[in-house]
Amino acid sequence: MGIDPGAANLGFGIVRVEGSHMVALDGGVVETTPDLPMERRLARIHNALRELIAWHEPKAMAIEEVYFGKNVGSAMAVGQASGVAMLAAAEHGVGCFSYTPQAIKMAVCGSGAAGKRQVQKMVGTLLGLPEPPTPDHAADALAVAICHGGSSGHREAVAVAQQGAVERSRAERVAG
Amino acid sequence: MGIDPGAANLGFGIVRVEGSHMVALDGGVVETTPDLPMERRLARIHNALRELIAWHEPKAMAIEEVYFGKNVGSAMAVGQASGVAMLAAAEHGVGCFSYTPQAIKMAVCGSGAAGKRQVQKMVGTLLGLPEPPTPDHAADALAVAICHGGSSGHREAVAVAQQGAVERSRAERVAG
Repeated sequence: MGIDPGAANLGFGIVRVEGSHMVALDGGVVETTPDLPMERRLARIHNALRELIAWHEPKAMAIEEVYFGKNVGSAMAVGQASGVAMLAAAEHGVGCFSYTPQAIKMAVCGSGAAGKRQVQKMVGTLLGLPEPPTPDHAADALAVAICHGGSSGHREAVAVAQQGAVERSRAERVAG
Repeated sequence: MGIDPGAANLGFGIVRVEGSHMVALDGGVVETTPDLPMERRLARIHNALRELIAWHEPKAMAIEEVYFGKNVGSAMAVGQASGVAMLAAAEHGVGCFSYTPQAIKMAVCGSGAAGKRQVQKMVGTLLGLPEPPTPDHAADALAVAICHGGSSGHREAVAVAQQGAVERSRAERVAG
């Protein structure tokens, strides 16, 4: 289970590793509105994640590490949201892992400097989806899940799919 | 109920406003050890705060806002700890409020630039304690609680006590 933490929009994505490839089981966004006080927004996120964890029984929760810098207020909110996400995991005995944005891009695209669209497209390819997943936060959460799946012994599958995508991309460019 | 958030040491302090003054009902630190995974440390903090809230039934939770800057890793942990603290409050229908370190110092000492020892001493004075409270995180949490108590209509009591402390301090200086 991958998490792209945030208080307004928390992305989640559930991926199953099946032999040499991965399939997407679920993905979406838990939204909360700013007219609710923060503690109630956190309670909503916590409840939604508890339900998802109870339903899917993931083996692990992988969380994208926050990028601090631009906005202290939103960084704080991201920290709080990731705290209640990790609590939901702990309450179901699910271990948590965190990955930097660079590690996630590297795992999904083979480059830590990959762009947002490139990551989305590659997530779609790796999971065998007909189109890149949307919205952005769900795609990001699936990317974290893929990163963890890759980190936990499926790097080869990712590498093969990446190679395939690169080749398809070359073929498209040639065809275009 | 005041909270000085942190993953290793989370300070809490419970203060009751009684007419024109405040009394300390409880205060201490929830400690977690770094050998536990973060999600289990957060679960321990969440449980401890739930018990305290159920016991004391506070009217509000006041949280010291994080100082971001020095250490991104610990700032993240502080955000996560404050997230589970706020969740514990929400689960008991307790509203949350946050105050900057400057606002807390201003409320307790009458100056946003007051030092740590000065705040501790003043917390002891305002709560009528025989000595400044320890450890630091508990004193800080009591300070946040006093700040909120003052913000919610008891500024005068704080002002009077501050004046008294200043006069005592002057008297001590004169005596010394």
